[in-house]
Amino acid sequence: MNMSAWQKFQNRFKAIRDNKVFELFVIGVIIFSSLMIGVRTYPLPSMAETILWGLDYAVTLFFVIEISIRMAAEERLRDFFKKGWNIFDFVIVVVSLIPLDDSEYALIARMLRLFRVMRLISFIPELRVLVSALITSLPRMGYVALLMFIIFYLYAVIGNLMFSTINPVLWGDLGISLLTLFRVATFEDWTDVMYETMTVYKLSWMYFISFIFFSAFVFLNMMIGIVVDVLDEEHKKMELEKTGEQQQEQQAFEADLKAQVDELNRKLDLLLVNQKP
Amino acid sequence: MNMSAWQKFQNRFKAIRDNKVFELFVIGVIIFSSLMIGVRTYPLPSMAETILWGLDYAVTLFFVIEISIRMAAEERLRDFFKKGWNIFDFVIVVVSLIPLDDSEYALIARMLRLFRVMRLISFIPELRVLVSALITSLPRMGYVALLMFIIFYLYAVIGNLMFSTINPVLWGDLGISLLTLFRVATFEDWTDVMYETMTVYKLSWMYFISFIFFSAFVFLNMMIGIVVDVLDEEHKKMELEKTGEQQQEQQAFEADLKAQVDELNRKLDLLLVNQKP
Amino acid sequence: MNMSAWQKFQNRFKAIRDNKVFELFVIGVIIFSSLMIGVRTYPLPSMAETILWGLDYAVTLFFVIEISIRMAAEERLRDFFKKGWNIFDFVIVVVSLIPLDDSEYALIARMLRLFRVMRLISFIPELRVLVSALITSLPRMGYVALLMFIIFYLYAVIGNLMFSTINPVLWGDLGISLLTLFRVATFEDWTDVMYETMTVYKLSWMYFISFIFFSAFVFLNMMIGIVVDVLDEEHKKMELEKTGEQQQEQQAFEADLKAQVDELNRKLDLLLVNQKP
Amino acid sequence: MNMSAWQKFQNRFKAIRDNKVFELFVIGVIIFSSLMIGVRTYPLPSMAETILWGLDYAVTLFFVIEISIRMAAEERLRDFFKKGWNIFDFVIVVVSLIPLDDSEYALIARMLRLFRVMRLISFIPELRVLVSALITSLPRMGYVALLMFIIFYLYAVIGNLMFSTINPVLWGDLGISLLTLFRVATFEDWTDVMYETMTVYKLSWMYFISFIFFSAFVFLNMMIGIVVDVLDEEHKKMELEKTGEQQQEQQAFEADLKAQVDELNRKLDLLLVNQKP
Repeated sequence: MNMSAWQKFQNRFKAIRDNKVFELFVIGVIIFSSLMIGVRTYPLPSMAETILWGLDYAVTLFFVIEISIRMAAEERLRDFFKKGWNIFDFVIVVVSLIPLDDSEYALIARMLRLFRVMRLISFIPELRVLVSALITSLPRMGYVALLMFIIFYLYAVIGNLMFSTINPVLWGDLGISLLTLFRVATFEDWTDVMYETMTVYKLSWMYFISFIFFSAFVFLNMMIGIVVDVLDEEHKKMELEKTGEQQQEQQAFEADLKAQVDELNRKLDLLLVNQKP
Repeated sequence: MNMSAWQKFQNRFKAIRDNKVFELFVIGVIIFSSLMIGVRTYPLPSMAETILWGLDYAVTLFFVIEISIRMAAEERLRDFFKKGWNIFDFVIVVVSLIPLDDSEYALIARMLRLFRVMRLISFIPELRVLVSALITSLPRMGYVALLMFIIFYLYAVIGNLMFSTINPVLWGDLGISLLTLFRVATFEDWTDVMYETMTVYKLSWMYFISFIFFSAFVFLNMMIGIVVDVLDEEHKKMELEKTGEQQQEQQAFEADLKAQVDELNRKLDLLLVNQKP
Repeated sequence: MNMSAWQKFQNRFKAIRDNKVFELFVIGVIIFSSLMIGVRTYPLPSMAETILWGLDYAVTLFFVIEISIRMAAEERLRDFFKKGWNIFDFVIVVVSLIPLDDSEYALIARMLRLFRVMRLISFIPELRVLVSALITSLPRMGYVALLMFIIFYLYAVIGNLMFSTINPVLWGDLGISLLTLFRVATFEDWTDVMYETMTVYKLSWMYFISFIFFSAFVFLNMMIGIVVDVLDEEHKKMELEKTGEQQQEQQAFEADLKAQVDELNRKLDLLLVNQKP
Repeated sequence: MNMSAWQKFQNRFKAIRDNKVFELFVIGVIIFSSLMIGVRTYPLPSMAETILWGLDYAVTLFFVIEISIRMAAEERLRDFFKKGWNIFDFVIVVVSLIPLDDSEYALIARMLRLFRVMRLISFIPELRVLVSALITSLPRMGYVALLMFIIFYLYAVIGNLMFSTINPVLWGDLGISLLTLFRVATFEDWTDVMYETMTVYKLSWMYFISFIFFSAFVFLNMMIGIVVDVLDEEHKKMELEKTGEQQQEQQAFEADLKAQVDELNRKLDLLLVNQKP
C-alpha cells in the first residue's frame, strides 16, 4: 500500500493520541497547570513568580501542540469539531492564547487560564459520562423549576409591595426580593427577616411560613419525582433484559413441545389412514 | 345543514380557542403582564408609568375578550364552569376588573393583578398536571402532618410554661412558641434560643435536642414513607402492564396447545370407534 | 338466656364504647381540652379564667367517666390493661386527678394535663398505626446510631482536650462538647465555632470538616439504608402476592394439561390392549 | 492423642477467646475505659484522679493480656495479623503502652487512649459490618467527589481573584476560599459573605447563587445515583433468587410433561409397528 508522507504523519499522530501514557501525561499537565493557578493565590517570592510565568508559557505551548496533534490525527478536520468536547477543548486552548497578561485585563486572563481545570472533565471519560448524565437530567426538572419560579415571583412581588418601606435593602425591588426569598428558602437567618416585618405587620409570619411550606413542598416532590423516574427507567431496562432471557427459554420449550405434539398428530393421522382400508 | 347565526359565531370562537397560535399569544400576554408587574417594582420615569397604565388596561381588556371567547365557544355556559381551572381563570379576570386603582386599596389592586401570573399554570398543560399531582399527594401527608402538629403543640405549651418568663418575645404565648419551634426545626439560630434558656434551666438542652430528634425523625419517616408509596404505586402499574402482555402470549400458547391436544383426543376417539367393530 | 344485672350494664357500656358518635364526641372533648390548655397561654380576663377552671373540672370528670365505661365494658378487668394504649390512657387520666393546682407544683399540674393531647394518638386508629410504625422503625437505626455516637464521643473528647482553654463555654466538658458538636452537625453557626479555634490552631478546620464529613456520610448512608430496607420489604411482599396469583393460574393450567395427556395415555393403552388379540 | 503443653495452653486460650462471657466482659471494659476518658473532662477531686490513674493502668494491663490471649490462640502468629481488625486492635493497644503521661506529650497520650473507644467497632460484629459497608460505598462516590472538587476549585480561584481585596479573611488564598465555599455550601451565614461582596460587585450574587445551584445539583444527583445503584443491586440479587426458585418448579413441570409426551410417542410407535403386519 502506497502511503503519502501526510498519511504517515497522521498515523504517527493517531498513535500518539491513542497512547495511554500520553493521555496520562496530558492529565498530569492539566492537574499541574491547575495547581499552578492555585499556588499563585498565595504570596510568593519573585523568583517563584518568574518560574511560574515560565511554566505557564510551557503549559500553554504544550496544550497548543497537544490539540494540534489531535486535530492532525483526524482524517478530516471537521470530524474533530463534530464532538462537543473537542470544541470545548479547542475554545479553552485558543482563548488562553490571547495576550492579556500585561494589560488591565490580567484578571480576566487568569480566569480564562482557570478554565483549563475543566479540561480534566473532557479528558477523564468517567467525568465526561457523569456530566452528560447531569445535563440529560436537566429537562426532567424543567416544569418543576418553572412552577418554583412562579412561586418565587409571586412572593417576591408581594414582598416588595408590602415590605419595601420596612427594609428597602431586602425588599427594594423585584431582584432583591427574589434574592431575599432564596435566602429564606435556604433557612439562612430567615427569622431576622421575618421578625423585622412582624414589627409592622403582625401576621407577616404567614407570608414566610407559607412560602417555606410551598417551596419545600414543591422541592421535595420534585426530588421524589426524580428518584421515582430514574428508578422506573432502570427497572424497565432490567425487566426487558430479564424477560428477554426468560422468554427465549420459554419459547424454546414451547417450540419443542409443539414439535412433539405435531409428531403425535402426524403419527395418529398415519394410524387413521392405515386403519381405513 | 341549517345553522343559526349564533352557531356560526360559536364555531368561529371554538376555532379561535383551539388555535395553537392564539394559545401561544395568550401565554405571551400572561408573561408580558407578569413582567409588567415586576417592572413596576423598580423606580420608573413618569412616562413609563403612564405607558404601563395604558398597557395594563389593554391587557385587562384582552383577558376579558379572551375569556368571553372561551365562554362563548362552549355550547352551554355551565359546561365552562364545570372545569375547575376555568373557574380559576374567570375569578382572576373578574376580580382584576374591580376599579380599586385610585383608592386606598391600590395595594390590594396590584396584588390581585399579580394573580394573573398563576394563569400560566392554568394555561400550560404540563404545569396543570404537575399542580394536580401535588394536590393529590397532599392527603398522603395528612396524618403525619397531624402527628407533627401534636408534637409541635406539646412542645409549644411546655416551652411557654417554662421559658415565657425568660424571653417573652420567643415564648410569650402559644402562637409565638409554635413559631419559635418552627425556627428551631429549620435549625435557624436555634442554639441562641437554647443557650438563653440554659442560663436558667441547665437541662433545657434536653427539651431542644429531643424536639429536634422527634420532629426530624417523624419528618424523615414521612419522606421515606412517601418515596416507598409512590414507588409501590408505579411498580404495581408496571407489573400489571408487564403481566398483561406476558399473560396474553402465555394464554395464546396455552389455548394453542389445548386445541392441539383436543385434536389428538378427537383422533384417538375416532381410532377407538373405528377399531370397535 | 338469663343475664345478671351486671352483664346488662356491661353490654350497655360496650354499646356506648363502640358507638361511633360517642367516639367522635370523646375526640371532640380531647381536642377541646387541648385548645383550653393553649388558650391559657394567652392573657385572659379573670372571668374567662374561672370558666376555664370549671370546664377543666368538667373535662377531668368526663375522662374519668369515659375510661370507667371502657373498663367496665371489658369482661375481665385485666383484658383492659393488656393493650398498651389503654394503660397509656389510664395513666394520663389518673395522673391528671392528682390535686396539684393550688400548690407550688401548679406548673407540673398543667404539664400533666397537657399530656391529654396525646390521647388523640391513642384514639385515632391511623395515628396509632403511624406511631407503632415509627417505633418499629427504631431498631433499624440502632447500630448506626451507636456508630454515630462513637464518632460524636471521639470528637467531643478531642474537642475538649484541645479547645477547652480557648472557649470553655463551648468545650468545657464532655457534655458541653457533645452539644457543641450537635450544633456543628446541624450547621448552626458552625463557622463561628471554627474560626474561634482557628485563631489558636490554624489547622483546626480539619477537625470540623472531617467531623462534618463523617457525620453527614454516616447519616446519609443510614438514610439510604433505611429507604432500601423498607423498599425491599415491600417488594418481597408484593412479589409473594403476585407470584401467588400467577402460580395458581399456572398450576391450574398445568393440572389441566396433565389430565388431558393422561387421558391420551389411557386411550392409547386401550388401543394397544384392543389391538393385541 | 499426644498433645504438647503448648497446644494444651493454646486450646485453653482459644476457649477463653471464643467464650461469650469473656467477649461481653471485654466490651464492658472497653465501654468502661471510654467512660473514664469522658469523666476526666470534668473537674475531679484529687482522690478520684488517683483512682482513675490506677484504673487506667489496670485497663491497659487488661488489654495487653486480652490481645496476648488472642494472639496465643492462633496456631500461627501471622494468621492473627491477616485480619485488618486485629492489626487495628494491636496498634491501639501497643500505642497506649508508650509512656507519655508525665511528659509534655500528656495531651497526645490521652488522645491515643481515646482511640480505645474505636475498639468497640472491632468487637461488635454488627458495627464491623456497618463500617465495612460504609468503606465499600466510598468508591461509588469517587468521580462525583472529583467533579465536586473541580467545581469548588474553580469557584475558589475565581473568588480569590475577585474578592481577596474585599475580605482577605474569607478569600485571602486558595485554602481559605475553599473553606469559605464549604461554608456557603452548608448555607452557614452565606448571605453575610455575599452581601459584603455585593457592596463592591453588584452582580456577585450570580457567583453565589450559581455556586449553590451547581454544588446542590451535583450533590443531589449523587445522592439519587447512590440510592438507585444500591436499589438496583438489591433487586438483581432478589430477581436471581426468585427466578431460581420459579425456574426449578417450571423445569420440573416441563421435564414431567416431556416425559409423558415421549411416552405417548413411544406407545404410538408401538401401535404403528403392531398395525403394519
